[in-house]
Amino acid sequence: MEHVADVRVLYADTDAAGVAYYANYFRWFETGRAELMRQKGTAYRDLTEAGMLLPVVEASIRYRSPARYDDVIKVYAEVREMRGARITFGYRLTRSDGKLLAEGATLHAFTDDRGKVVRAPANLTMNTRLVDKSAEEGR
Amino acid sequence: MEHVADVRVLYADTDAAGVAYYANYFRWFETGRAELMRQKGTAYRDLTEAGMLLPVVEASIRYRSPARYDDVIKVYAEVREMRGARITFGYRLTRSDGKLLAEGATLHAFTDDRGKVVRAPANLTMNTRLVDKSAEEGR
Amino acid sequence: MEHVADVRVLYADTDAAGVAYYANYFRWFETGRAELMRQKGTAYRDLTEAGMLLPVVEASIRYRSPARYDDVIKVYAEVREMRGARITFGYRLTRSDGKLLAEGATLHAFTDDRGKVVRAPANLTMNTRLVDKSAEEGR
Amino acid sequence: MEHVADVRVLYADTDAAGVAYYANYFRWFETGRAELMRQKGTAYRDLTEAGMLLPVVEASIRYRSPARYDDVIKVYAEVREMRGARITFGYRLTRSDGKLLAEGATLHAFTDDRGKVVRAPANLTMNTRLVDKSAEEGR
Repeated sequence: MEHVADVRVLYADTDAAGVAYYANYFRWFETGRAELMRQKGTAYRDLTEAGMLLPVVEASIRYRSPARYDDVIKVYAEVREMRGARITFGYRLTRSDGKLLAEGATLHAFTDDRGKVVRAPANLTMNTRLVDKSAEEGR
Repeated sequence: MEHVADVRVLYADTDAAGVAYYANYFRWFETGRAELMRQKGTAYRDLTEAGMLLPVVEASIRYRSPARYDDVIKVYAEVREMRGARITFGYRLTRSDGKLLAEGATLHAFTDDRGKVVRAPANLTMNTRLVDKSAEEGR
Repeated sequence: MEHVADVRVLYADTDAAGVAYYANYFRWFETGRAELMRQKGTAYRDLTEAGMLLPVVEASIRYRSPARYDDVIKVYAEVREMRGARITFGYRLTRSDGKLLAEGATLHAFTDDRGKVVRAPANLTMNTRLVDKSAEEGR
Repeated sequence: MEHVADVRVLYADTDAAGVAYYANYFRWFETGRAELMRQKGTAYRDLTEAGMLLPVVEASIRYRSPARYDDVIKVYAEVREMRGARITFGYRLTRSDGKLLAEGATLHAFTDDRGKVVRAPANLTMNTRLVDKSAEEGR
């Protein structure tokens, strides 16, 4: 996976148990896939301006260690698979000292802006094949 | 003001200080104005489906006592003023035992869905005049 | 599963694609397990006041149809499994007309308020056995 | 005011009107005061670890232009006033091209971790006097 962003935990992200609220990790996953896509040459904003969306179809996460207020979280992301109209992103969040906080994945469909499933844009496919290859080599 | 809704504080709403995060009270204000409008006969969804929006221009709040996890918050709302293309809502949040939690207001503009300021719909105006009148009587 | 709560989608819950943001469904899952526990006789607040927590260890969701502004979501929840220090909740969200919006599950550990894993309280176990049984009968 | 942070607008921050949801600007205000305090030598985490809190007593905002998905927001913050147990922060959010998005302020009380109002720590006071002075010179 690639290190794509650092985010700092706000009070807004925490809950009364003194740790980051479980749903907010998916916010950081969003940062992960957005920055990965930007680095690969197709920002998500480019897709939406071209009339495409990537709605989430499935999401999963395993929490390993709680993130706390003011922690700096290192966000890692990768494209795990891309086939037809579907793309799977993988994520890993660590604390700045390397401690693993959470791992997860999201599966998305390519749709037009009315929700109809469509094939991924050809130029995105090429970028992603390169990603897949380097991801395999990195394992 | 009218009692328009009850909402229960989730872990999602709290922060590491053990109380509701300050920005989340504005979520409860949204519940307040949405339910007030619905009760007055014009749900916000009706406005948006008619191509209108009510973007917030100003917002303010005074926090009186912290809301905590699992508290049931009574949401009170009123139309304070409506003139031309502007409407001001007032809010009061109390705990179920009557303890005052917060008070505030939001000022909104009527716009079309491209952000252009427009006059309020005539039928809404009428409803609101009735609101204003009863609000004055209630003070 | 049991119908434990109704929640209305706020603007706060939606995103620029015009539908509920994917992380916010986990907020509704929280409402689901909190109300289920309350109905079974042990509100989550009771647990925390007894020095226990139920941190989420894993979470997963499948999105079936997008929730939209002002939809009323029916929240269904059940205890799927409870063994030793772990409990799994299942969830189903439908629109008020019955349309399936999302399904998911969360796995939690029982811990003390310092994060040490502990066995579930005996009285909660009993309640849950009853839940498990009726859940099986209901399938 | 000082430029203390840049934040990028996520889908999580937007709503169905296609712009950032009004409550989320207060999240960015939190980033503003946290980074300002860190730069002045007293991170908010230092305060909390010393048993102090800075609960918000009042907050207000004027929205000038909507923030949209993927915008990079420049966050400016300053200490406006500090007297006894109270401190006021001012904020200004601009788009990266300089367009003004919002301005606001938050008033906070210094309290211990049980909510009792206390005087600000002496060393923080000194830092802040310097801030106040430079802020006046900068106006």
